[in-house]
Amino acid sequence: MPPETVADAPSAFHEPPVLPAGFTCAARSCGLKEGGRPDLALFFSAEPAQAAAVFTRNRLPGAPILVGREIIEKGRLRAVVVNSKISNVGTGEEGVRNARRMGAAAAQELGVPADEVLMSSTGVIGVRLPIERIEAGIRGMAAELQPDPLVAARAIMTTDTVPKALSLSVGAATLSAVGKGAGMIAPNMATMLVYIFTDAALAPGAADRLLRAAVADSFNMLSVDTDTSTSDTCVLLANGLAGPVDEAEFAAALNALCIRMAELLARDGEGATKLLRATVEGAHSVEEARRMARSIVESPLVKTMAYGADPNVGRVLMAVGKCFECEVDPVRLSIRIGEAPVFANGARLDFEDAAVRAILSGDPVDIRVDLGLGDGRATAFGCDLTPGYIEENAAYYSS
Amino acid sequence: MPPETVADAPSAFHEPPVLPAGFTCAARSCGLKEGGRPDLALFFSAEPAQAAAVFTRNRLPGAPILVGREIIEKGRLRAVVVNSKISNVGTGEEGVRNARRMGAAAAQELGVPADEVLMSSTGVIGVRLPIERIEAGIRGMAAELQPDPLVAARAIMTTDTVPKALSLSVGAATLSAVGKGAGMIAPNMATMLVYIFTDAALAPGAADRLLRAAVADSFNMLSVDTDTSTSDTCVLLANGLAGPVDEAEFAAALNALCIRMAELLARDGEGATKLLRATVEGAHSVEEARRMARSIVESPLVKTMAYGADPNVGRVLMAVGKCFECEVDPVRLSIRIGEAPVFANGARLDFEDAAVRAILSGDPVDIRVDLGLGDGRATAFGCDLTPGYIEENAAYYSS
Repeated sequence: MPPETVADAPSAFHEPPVLPAGFTCAARSCGLKEGGRPDLALFFSAEPAQAAAVFTRNRLPGAPILVGREIIEKGRLRAVVVNSKISNVGTGEEGVRNARRMGAAAAQELGVPADEVLMSSTGVIGVRLPIERIEAGIRGMAAELQPDPLVAARAIMTTDTVPKALSLSVGAATLSAVGKGAGMIAPNMATMLVYIFTDAALAPGAADRLLRAAVADSFNMLSVDTDTSTSDTCVLLANGLAGPVDEAEFAAALNALCIRMAELLARDGEGATKLLRATVEGAHSVEEARRMARSIVESPLVKTMAYGADPNVGRVLMAVGKCFECEVDPVRLSIRIGEAPVFANGARLDFEDAAVRAILSGDPVDIRVDLGLGDGRATAFGCDLTPGYIEENAAYYSS
Repeated sequence: MPPETVADAPSAFHEPPVLPAGFTCAARSCGLKEGGRPDLALFFSAEPAQAAAVFTRNRLPGAPILVGREIIEKGRLRAVVVNSKISNVGTGEEGVRNARRMGAAAAQELGVPADEVLMSSTGVIGVRLPIERIEAGIRGMAAELQPDPLVAARAIMTTDTVPKALSLSVGAATLSAVGKGAGMIAPNMATMLVYIFTDAALAPGAADRLLRAAVADSFNMLSVDTDTSTSDTCVLLANGLAGPVDEAEFAAALNALCIRMAELLARDGEGATKLLRATVEGAHSVEEARRMARSIVESPLVKTMAYGADPNVGRVLMAVGKCFECEVDPVRLSIRIGEAPVFANGARLDFEDAAVRAILSGDPVDIRVDLGLGDGRATAFGCDLTPGYIEENAAYYSS
């Protein structure tokens, strides 16, 4: 789905966002964050939900990922419990035990099986999880479950500047997502957590297949700073309360939801002042289009160009060309910034600097590359690189 | 060769640097840079030199690279001509014609065959090369040839803050390098140009083999900002005037020269305040060690940690783990910052923050990872990420 479809049709999304039938959430402050800000979130499904998850590919994942991979094998979840501020990564065997204790505490509070509760932790790496505070915080949360997804969205924020929740309708069903993006209280990596809920009844095994397809075009095309978190998690829970829906329609809605959430996460990337989208088409293959689109939004020189609204378009050429393994023919290649053509027929076009500068001053900034070689097409989502990114990431726990 | 060997033995390098017997250079201002600063350099070998070159792998290389690849096939050079300020990239067929004219003008001035002159251009992309100014500038340069490599080093600078030339002795021979690193007048990518000269007599074909081996451990392990220039060029010229040398000794000296030049280029990276070195050992293979070492020095979060002297060591864990295709066992993994152990046995160690902060405040900063899996070892060279990088790259030609 081209990004225009989503960006130009925000009305498809509910305002304010809601949770689907049978899903509720609660949030508390258990003393991990300062100032009584919420740092503990609980999501609950009144009915057993078909569930699928994708986790970080980082080879040194956090304890909740190690435990989560076991739990998701059953394909069924009743709840997700999440803390912010401390990620429970690089914490050895004790970290794994603490992740299990966190899930068990939520299961006990909700009266559901412990192997149907997924846990996530996000925040600083290498610090012991204060599991006693979390266990104490979970007690009594069942009585506080309520339907507003923003309540939980606020509790999972680290340096996110806004809480992120979205929902839209698919037939008689609702599809909702709660996420957090690039940020930290204590400096940390761009951890992404996204929880997706629906009351649609999906065919057996469909949750996993649909989630992986949607993630490929959204979160796997998202890059704030090229650094892959040890905690990235995206989960889909489908409790079936609204009955079956058209699967193609559901898949399209799920794609749109994930792409819009990826855009929200990119736009709220650390220090970001604008969303950066790169669409590559005419590539030899979808895989090559994806590599090149990511290369563009990940390039520090393209990102600083977007920040400075500086029409130094040779940098896009560089970012395409540095995908050594991809096919490129300079004569067939054309590049547009927004709608303005800047490169074609093997040479930079004689465009008006001021016009391109005006486009680059906007938000979002769209970079469009046509390779003229094949049918491969992909869009990647990123943000500009600003002094704010460095400011946030050069300081330590104290902030 | 471990970086310590080079960093701890700077006395191996001549002070000031010299060119080997039979090599001379000259520089002029031909009006590309403002303020009469030198922007045109000429290197000359009195005797035909065995020559080899490696060029950027960027798929959209500049015109001098396209022409240079043809010229280097002969394996013999008499001269190299270089301009700064404009890179002659993204300039189509006219750019290729201008690159050839530049080489022909130097050949005519020096009275050598046109197919024995390599040309380089560095600077902004997509701007027509003012070939007439360059041709006029070259006329009469033969009379100005002299032996100080810093004269040419100054003329090839863009936003480099210091000229870069090195030399050392190998038996009776001399080995010298002149380079430029990350920088621009008009913002551009981190273009690397390095010219290496020796009066050693190398065995037929040895220049290419020796150069490729040295580049693999030095310039190919260098990253200022992950953006691969369309103009990167490294050339070795050996004119034989000092007679044969021990090849193993020459290879070691060439490695040391290239590693030290890579360190100089990294340390003078745009906005950099310190050199960042990552050594990975105990890897499954050298290839995996290289990937992980590069991943560490390229990570924006590790780079901002170095800038802020912030002992947020979980980021090194993340940077190792995000090499999805590489083998890592958290229990065998150990990490040191400088000499301070910070991670072992699957968990972050309880180190003293202040001690690690002091190490990170120094220059260079060494990060050492031991995977405990095999014999693979590599060192990568980078720099910190600072507000200066963004400042330099958010503005346009005007600066």
